[in-house]
Amino acid sequence: MKKHHPTSPIELKIAYIGGGSRGWARKLMIDLAKCPDLTGEVWLYDIDMESARLNEQLGNWMQDKPGVVSRWRYHAEESLTKSLQDADFVVLSIQPGTLEIMGQNLAIAAKYGLYFPVGDTTGAPGLVRGLFSAITYAGFARAIAEHCPKAWLINYTNPMTICTRTLTKVAPQLKVFGCCHEVFSSQEMLAQIAMQYLGLEAVPPRHEIEVNVTGINHFTWIDRATYKGHDLLALLREHVNKPGVIREYTMAEVLEKKNWFHNADQVKLALFQRYGALAAAGDRHLVEFVHGFITSPEELGRWGVVQTPIEYRLARWAKAPQQTRDLMAGKIPFDLPDTGEEGVLQMCAILGLGDLITNVNLPNIGQIPNLPLDAVVETNAHFSRDSVRPLTAGPLPAGIWGLVAPHVNNQEMIVEAALTGDQDLAFRAVMNDPTTVLPIDKAWQMFREMLQASRAYLPGWNI
Amino acid sequence: MKKHHPTSPIELKIAYIGGGSRGWARKLMIDLAKCPDLTGEVWLYDIDMESARLNEQLGNWMQDKPGVVSRWRYHAEESLTKSLQDADFVVLSIQPGTLEIMGQNLAIAAKYGLYFPVGDTTGAPGLVRGLFSAITYAGFARAIAEHCPKAWLINYTNPMTICTRTLTKVAPQLKVFGCCHEVFSSQEMLAQIAMQYLGLEAVPPRHEIEVNVTGINHFTWIDRATYKGHDLLALLREHVNKPGVIREYTMAEVLEKKNWFHNADQVKLALFQRYGALAAAGDRHLVEFVHGFITSPEELGRWGVVQTPIEYRLARWAKAPQQTRDLMAGKIPFDLPDTGEEGVLQMCAILGLGDLITNVNLPNIGQIPNLPLDAVVETNAHFSRDSVRPLTAGPLPAGIWGLVAPHVNNQEMIVEAALTGDQDLAFRAVMNDPTTVLPIDKAWQMFREMLQASRAYLPGWNI
Amino acid sequence: MKKHHPTSPIELKIAYIGGGSRGWARKLMIDLAKCPDLTGEVWLYDIDMESARLNEQLGNWMQDKPGVVSRWRYHAEESLTKSLQDADFVVLSIQPGTLEIMGQNLAIAAKYGLYFPVGDTTGAPGLVRGLFSAITYAGFARAIAEHCPKAWLINYTNPMTICTRTLTKVAPQLKVFGCCHEVFSSQEMLAQIAMQYLGLEAVPPRHEIEVNVTGINHFTWIDRATYKGHDLLALLREHVNKPGVIREYTMAEVLEKKNWFHNADQVKLALFQRYGALAAAGDRHLVEFVHGFITSPEELGRWGVVQTPIEYRLARWAKAPQQTRDLMAGKIPFDLPDTGEEGVLQMCAILGLGDLITNVNLPNIGQIPNLPLDAVVETNAHFSRDSVRPLTAGPLPAGIWGLVAPHVNNQEMIVEAALTGDQDLAFRAVMNDPTTVLPIDKAWQMFREMLQASRAYLPGWNI
Amino acid sequence: MKKHHPTSPIELKIAYIGGGSRGWARKLMIDLAKCPDLTGEVWLYDIDMESARLNEQLGNWMQDKPGVVSRWRYHAEESLTKSLQDADFVVLSIQPGTLEIMGQNLAIAAKYGLYFPVGDTTGAPGLVRGLFSAITYAGFARAIAEHCPKAWLINYTNPMTICTRTLTKVAPQLKVFGCCHEVFSSQEMLAQIAMQYLGLEAVPPRHEIEVNVTGINHFTWIDRATYKGHDLLALLREHVNKPGVIREYTMAEVLEKKNWFHNADQVKLALFQRYGALAAAGDRHLVEFVHGFITSPEELGRWGVVQTPIEYRLARWAKAPQQTRDLMAGKIPFDLPDTGEEGVLQMCAILGLGDLITNVNLPNIGQIPNLPLDAVVETNAHFSRDSVRPLTAGPLPAGIWGLVAPHVNNQEMIVEAALTGDQDLAFRAVMNDPTTVLPIDKAWQMFREMLQASRAYLPGWNI
Repeated sequence: MKKHHPTSPIELKIAYIGGGSRGWARKLMIDLAKCPDLTGEVWLYDIDMESARLNEQLGNWMQDKPGVVSRWRYHAEESLTKSLQDADFVVLSIQPGTLEIMGQNLAIAAKYGLYFPVGDTTGAPGLVRGLFSAITYAGFARAIAEHCPKAWLINYTNPMTICTRTLTKVAPQLKVFGCCHEVFSSQEMLAQIAMQYLGLEAVPPRHEIEVNVTGINHFTWIDRATYKGHDLLALLREHVNKPGVIREYTMAEVLEKKNWFHNADQVKLALFQRYGALAAAGDRHLVEFVHGFITSPEELGRWGVVQTPIEYRLARWAKAPQQTRDLMAGKIPFDLPDTGEEGVLQMCAILGLGDLITNVNLPNIGQIPNLPLDAVVETNAHFSRDSVRPLTAGPLPAGIWGLVAPHVNNQEMIVEAALTGDQDLAFRAVMNDPTTVLPIDKAWQMFREMLQASRAYLPGWNI
Repeated sequence: MKKHHPTSPIELKIAYIGGGSRGWARKLMIDLAKCPDLTGEVWLYDIDMESARLNEQLGNWMQDKPGVVSRWRYHAEESLTKSLQDADFVVLSIQPGTLEIMGQNLAIAAKYGLYFPVGDTTGAPGLVRGLFSAITYAGFARAIAEHCPKAWLINYTNPMTICTRTLTKVAPQLKVFGCCHEVFSSQEMLAQIAMQYLGLEAVPPRHEIEVNVTGINHFTWIDRATYKGHDLLALLREHVNKPGVIREYTMAEVLEKKNWFHNADQVKLALFQRYGALAAAGDRHLVEFVHGFITSPEELGRWGVVQTPIEYRLARWAKAPQQTRDLMAGKIPFDLPDTGEEGVLQMCAILGLGDLITNVNLPNIGQIPNLPLDAVVETNAHFSRDSVRPLTAGPLPAGIWGLVAPHVNNQEMIVEAALTGDQDLAFRAVMNDPTTVLPIDKAWQMFREMLQASRAYLPGWNI
Repeated sequence: MKKHHPTSPIELKIAYIGGGSRGWARKLMIDLAKCPDLTGEVWLYDIDMESARLNEQLGNWMQDKPGVVSRWRYHAEESLTKSLQDADFVVLSIQPGTLEIMGQNLAIAAKYGLYFPVGDTTGAPGLVRGLFSAITYAGFARAIAEHCPKAWLINYTNPMTICTRTLTKVAPQLKVFGCCHEVFSSQEMLAQIAMQYLGLEAVPPRHEIEVNVTGINHFTWIDRATYKGHDLLALLREHVNKPGVIREYTMAEVLEKKNWFHNADQVKLALFQRYGALAAAGDRHLVEFVHGFITSPEELGRWGVVQTPIEYRLARWAKAPQQTRDLMAGKIPFDLPDTGEEGVLQMCAILGLGDLITNVNLPNIGQIPNLPLDAVVETNAHFSRDSVRPLTAGPLPAGIWGLVAPHVNNQEMIVEAALTGDQDLAFRAVMNDPTTVLPIDKAWQMFREMLQASRAYLPGWNI
Repeated sequence: MKKHHPTSPIELKIAYIGGGSRGWARKLMIDLAKCPDLTGEVWLYDIDMESARLNEQLGNWMQDKPGVVSRWRYHAEESLTKSLQDADFVVLSIQPGTLEIMGQNLAIAAKYGLYFPVGDTTGAPGLVRGLFSAITYAGFARAIAEHCPKAWLINYTNPMTICTRTLTKVAPQLKVFGCCHEVFSSQEMLAQIAMQYLGLEAVPPRHEIEVNVTGINHFTWIDRATYKGHDLLALLREHVNKPGVIREYTMAEVLEKKNWFHNADQVKLALFQRYGALAAAGDRHLVEFVHGFITSPEELGRWGVVQTPIEYRLARWAKAPQQTRDLMAGKIPFDLPDTGEEGVLQMCAILGLGDLITNVNLPNIGQIPNLPLDAVVETNAHFSRDSVRPLTAGPLPAGIWGLVAPHVNNQEMIVEAALTGDQDLAFRAVMNDPTTVLPIDKAWQMFREMLQASRAYLPGWNI
C-alpha cells in the first residue's frame, strides 16, 4: 500500500525493555537508521546494564555511518520507569529467565523422553517459561499503564502469546500487539512453489504472496495463498503428492552441516497433506505443538529436525559483546543489511505514513470466532494511523481447531496461574499439552523439577 | 491504497439483474466508461424488457462519447439463465414488487399511525418488502449457483440485508457482498467537522476521513473517526453540545424547498449525544430503526425529516425513459459526472488492480462477535485479488447492541419465513420491530393488510 | 417428590432484610408456623424499625396459636450486620425507595403518555427503580459476604432480576435465588383448561400441571405444559381460536368492581396465539414488556387491564399496622391460610428434607444458552440438599428471544450503571425499553425527571 | 422420588434393535419381569436371527417363573421395519462390526505401541468403530423416523456418544437418550468413602450418594458429591493424600486373578488429585481418554489396568447361547437378580409413574455451555412424563475442558465423516485423539490399516 513521507521526520521516544538484547536490538537500530521519516531517542532498559550500555554505544556509534539517513540518540537506563516515561512506543524483547534455566528445563524434559528442538513457546518447557515470563510481564504492564499509557507496545518475546496476553489481561486499556517473522518463511516457500509450478523466471518477492493467516503464534495456519490470483495451495497439493517430496531424513543428513536450525519443511508438508491448510511456522516449532514428533532425537531427525544444543545458544550469547566491540572497532565490516523485520514499517503505519497489512498477535475480538474472546491470536491485521485492526479470519475448521484450541486453553491457564499463583492450574496446562505424553504421575514429577529449576523467577511460590 | 494498471484491459462479462434500472444502471455505465482497465459485455436482464432495451441503447450509445476510455457492449436479455451464464460479476439491483405496492404498504402503515419516510428497509413495510424480496432472491441464488457459480455478486437492492442474506443462505458457496453508499455522507459530515474545528481551509475529501464501521445496513455505527490522527468524534461531542446544533424543526421549514430527501442530521446527532457513537445512515433511515420518531408527520418534521411522497417516486419513475431518450437525442447535455459509487473500484480491487478498504455487507464470520454468525452485517472490509475480507469490528457495546440486535433477529426471521412460507414467523418479526408501537391485535391487522397488498409477490401464501 | 421428616426440628437463623414488611412477612410467619421440621430465630432488619417491631410482636404472638406446630423467636434489629451474623438463610423483601417515589415516577411516565399498571419491574419506572435498588442491594451483597457467606439468599424484591443480579454480580460466591409466584397463576389457568377440555370433574391442583418455564421474571414463558400426559398448549390453541375468548373489554367492565389487580388474561392469550408459547405472568406485567399496550388507560382497558392507583397502594400501606394490631387484639380472627408461597418448602428442600422442582431466578449457567451467561433468568430448578440447580430450558425460539433478550440487555446495563454510577448507560437501558415509545429527546427528559424524583436514593449522582 | 402405580399395567410395544444380544437383553427381560406396572410385546430385531430366536425363547420361557410379576410376549423378527412399526420404545444395543474386527483393530493399535484395554469408545480403535457404527445408526435413524417417530429411543451401544449423536443428527425430531451405568461405580466408591470417613456402620446405598455429573460418556466428571449434606469430595481429597492410597501396581498383582476387568481406581484418584474433580468411569475407560497410560502393557499394569484379551471376549460370546439353553433346561438355576440397570425405571418415569433424576446422554441444549450445542453430552437429567430434561451442569472448568473438549470435537468429526464419507476428516479425528501419540505418517498408516480391517462395514469407501 501507498507510503507517505512527512515533511520533516517525526520525533519519537522509544522505550526498549530488554535493551541489552544481543540479537534483535541491532536489527531495530538498522531499520531505524534506514528510515528517513523518523527520529528521536531510544531508551535501553535492561537488568543487564552492561549489555544495555554496549548497545547504547553501538547505537550512537552507528549514527554517522554511510547509508544512515536518520538521527537517533540511544540511552542505557537502569530505571524502568524513566525509560517508559512518556514513550511513544515500547518495544519488549527480553530473555525470560536465563539460558541456563532454559537448558535445565530442556534437559529435564529430555530425561522424561521429550526432546524439544526450541522449547520457548509450548510443551512443558515453553509453558513453564511462560509461567515465569507472565509474572515479569505483569510488572511491565503495570509500569507501562502508569508511565506511558498511550504508548503502542510491540512484543517480540517468546512465548509470544503468553507475554502479549499478560499485557492485555493486566492492563486491557493498553495498545498492544506482538510480532513474529515466522510466517514470512512460509511465504518464501510458497514463492518457490509459485516459481516452480507457474514457470516464473525468478522467485517472486515475499510480499507478493498473499496469504490469509489464522491461529496462534508459531502455530498459525495459512488457509488461502495466492500469487497474482493463482491458488498456491492447489499447487502445493500437487507438489506434496509427488514422490520424494515427503520423505524420511537420516540423522547423518540432518547433523551434517551442524545447522542447529535445520528445517526441511517435512512436518509442515505432512500436516498440509492431511489437514488441507499450511502451518506457517518452521518445523522446529510445529513439532512442539503436535504429539508424536519429539519422542526421540531419531524421530526428530527422521523429519529433518534437530534440537538446538543449549551449548550453542550459550556460546553465541557469550560471543556477542565482543562481536559488537569488534564491529565498532572496525574489525568487522559494518553494513545495513535487510533485516527481514517489519517493526519499523509497523511504527510508520501507526504514525500515519502508509497503511500496511501483515500478521500480528492481538486479543481476539472476533477475528477467530471459535476461539475464546480476549485470548491472543495471530491473524492478518490492517495497520493505519493509530490503529491496528485484525482482519476477520473466520472460524477454524474442526480438524485444525482440534490442534489449536487446546493450546489456547493452556496458554490462558498459564497466564491465570501466573497472576494468581495457582500451581495446580499451571500443572493442568502442562499435563494437557499434547506433547506431554507421560502418565500423570511422571508429568507431575517433571513439572515439579522444572519449577525447581526456575524457582529464582517464581518468587513466593511454594516449590 | 496503490492501484495497478494491467497491460491491456481485462475482459469481463457482467450480468445485471434488474438491468432495466431507471437510476443506478446509468451510474454503473458511467463508472465503467471511465475505467480504462476493464472492458467487455454487460447483460441487462429485467422483467421489464422495454426498460432493459432502453438501457442497452443508452449503454451502447455512450461508447463513443468524449471522455469514455473503455469499450463495453450492452445486451438486453429476457432469459435470466443466458444473462448469468459464465458471468464474472453479477450486479443485483431490482425494484422488489412495484412502486404501487410500496405506496399501498406505506399508506396502510400510515393508517395505523406509522409514518415511514422511506419504508424499504425495516419497520412493517420494509419487512414485508423483505419477505417477498427474499422469495425472488431465492430464485436468483439458485440460478446463479447453477450458471455462474464462480461469479462475484454485488447486491444493491433494498432491503440490503435481507436480499444479501437470502443469497448467502440459499447458496452459501457463492461470493457475495452488498454495497451501500449511505456511510459516505457521514464521512462528509465529519469532513465538515474537521474543517470547522481544526481550522482547515477546505473540506477534506471523504476518503481521508478514516472511520470504523459496524452494525447493519442503514443502521451502521461509526465508533472511531479520525482525520490525520485527530479524533473527530471528540470534536463532534464538542459540536453537539453547542446551543442550537440540536434543535427542533418546523414543518414549514422542512417542506419549504419540497426536498423530499430533506436531512437535517438531527436524529444522528441526538443518537450520538446519548449513545456515544455515530449512526452512519441518513436520518430518513435512522427514524425507521428506533421507536419514537415516526409516530406522526409532525414528529418527523420536528426532526427535519419528511416522508417521501409515493407520488413523487411514481412521477420520477414515469419520466425516466423520456429523459434517457432526450439524452441520446442530445436534448440533455451528456457528461460523465462523479457518481459517488464504488462498485467499479471494488471490481478492480477484486481483479487484483489495487487493494481497497471500504464498508460492505457480508455474512458475519466473527467481525461482530456478539451478533449471530452468518447474519449479514456491515463493516469495513479489505478488498484484494479475488478476496473480500471483513475487518474485525469487535463486539457492539451494550447500548448499541440493544438497538441493533433485535433488527438482526427480525431480518433472520423474515428470510426464514420467506424460505419456509411461515406467515406466523414473519408476523413475529414485524411485531418485534421497535417501530411497530401497536397492540398485538392491531399489528396483526396491519400485517395482514400488507400481505393482501403484496399478494402478487407471495405466490402460494394463504392470504 | 418425597418428603423426609427429621427426627427433631432443624434449628435455623433466618435474617429477614425488610423485616418490617407489611405484606409478605406475614406469609413467611404462617408458612414457618405450619412447618414442623424447622425451628429457630428470625431476625427482622428494616430501616423502618417501628414496622419491624410490630412484626416482631406479631411473630412472637403467633407462637401459641392453634395450628402452629413449630417454635420461632422473632427479633427486630436495627443493625444489618447483627441480623446477618451467621444466618442460615437471608430473606430479602424490601420496598425500594418509597411508595411516594413510585407514585411520582408513575405520574411522570403518564405525563409522557406511558401508563404502567404496576411499574416495579421494567419500563422507565421499573428500570429507574432497579437503578436505585441495585445501589441498595450492592450494600446488602457486601454485608452478607462478610457476615454470613454460607447462607442461602432468597430474594423477593422487585425488580426481581435486577436485585438478584446485583447480589450475584457483587458477590458471585454467594448462594442466591429469587422467588416469584407469578407463574403459579398460569398453572391455575391451565388447570382450568384441563378441566374444561378433558372433561374432568374438578380443577386439578396446580402442582399437577407440569410446565417448562423459560425466560426472565415477569416475562417467563411456558413452552410445554402437560396434565397427566395431555398437551395443554394444544388444548389452549383450540381454546383461543373459539369466538369470544379473545375479545375487547370496556373501561366500564374493567373498573366496575374496583379490582385494581384486574386480570383478564387477554394479553397472555393474544401473545400465545401469535407466538405459540404462553407468557406466564399476569397481564398487568406483560403489558409492561411489550410495546403497544400502555399507551393510554383506554388501551389498557381494552385488554382488561387497569393501572393500580398509587393512592390505593398508599392507603393499603397506611392501614396495615392497625390491621396487625387488630389481629393481635383479637378484633380480626386469626387463622393459618394457604399462602400460596413456596419459600419454606424451598428451605426444607435445601435442608435435605425432600427434593423439589419449581421455577426460580438464577444466574444463567447455560439453562438458556442464547441469553448471556451470568444474567439472571427464570427457569425450573431442582432443589435438593444444599443445591439449587436449574433444569436446562434450551435456546429461546427466535420470536420470543426477540421479546426477551432486549430486556436482559437493559437489566444488565442498569446493574452496571448502578455499580459504576454511569447515568448515560442507565438512560440507554431506559431508551432501549420497547415501551419507551418516545423520541429520544422526550425520553431523556422523562428519564431526568425520574432521577430527580428518585434523587434521595441516588447518593452522589449528578442529577 | 415418589412412584405411582397405575390401576392396570400399561401396555407397550418395545422394539429391541440388537435383540439377539448375548448380555444386556437378559437384564432387560429381568427388569421388565419385575415391573408390575408394564406389560406388552418386545420385538427382537437382529441381523443374527438365530440369537434373536434364542432370546425370544428365553423371554417367553421366563414368563411363568416365580417372582415374575408382569406379562410380556417376545418376538424375534428379521424385518427392521416390522419391529419398529408403532413401537413406544426402541432399545438399541448392538455389537458394531464383529468381535473379530474389534480384535484386529486392537492388534493394529498394539503394533503401533498403543494398548487399549477396551477400545470401544475413543482412541483410534474406538473412533474407527464409531465411524462404521455411525453408518449403521444413520440407517436406524431413518427407519425409526419413518415407522415410529413418536417412540422414545434408548441407546446402549458403544461408542455411546457417536451412536446417540448419529440418531439426533440424522433425525433431530426423535426423542433419544443414551444410557450407561459407568457412573454408578463411582457412586459406590464414594459410598465407601462416606462409610470410612463418616464412621457409618454400613455402606450407604448408591442412590443416596448425590452427584453432579458433567462431561461425555465414559469421560464424565463428578464435580460435587454429597451424602446427607457431607461433602464427599473433600473427604476424598483427604483420602488420596494418605500414603499408599495412590501407589504403583505390579503386573503380577494385576494378572493374578485373571480378572480381565481389573480396576484399581488409581487413574481416577490420580486425576482427582490433580484436577479436583472425579472422573466417573472406570480406569479401563479413563486411560483411553488421556495420553500417557496406554503406551505399554506394563504402564497399564502400573496403574492396575489390564487389556481385556479379545480371546476372552470371543469365548464368552461363543459360550453364551449354550448357557441360555442350559438355563431354560434347568441346568443353571434361574433367579431375578438386581441388574443394576435403570432402563425400566426410566421407561416408567417417562410413562408418568414417578419422577427420576439420573445421568444420561443427551444433545447439548446448554447443560454444558462451553461445549458445542447439539453435541451429545452426559449430565444428570430430570425424567418425568414424556420428558427427559437435562439439569444444567454449567461450564466445565478450564483444566477439565482441556481434557474433554478435544474428544467432543473428534466425535463430531467422526459422525460428520461417516455421513459424508470423508476419510480425511475421519483421520483428523483419529490423529487429534490425545492417545494417538504417533507421528502423523505412522498415524495415517495405522488408520488405513484399521479401515482395511473394517472395510466390510464401510460400504462404498475407497480403502
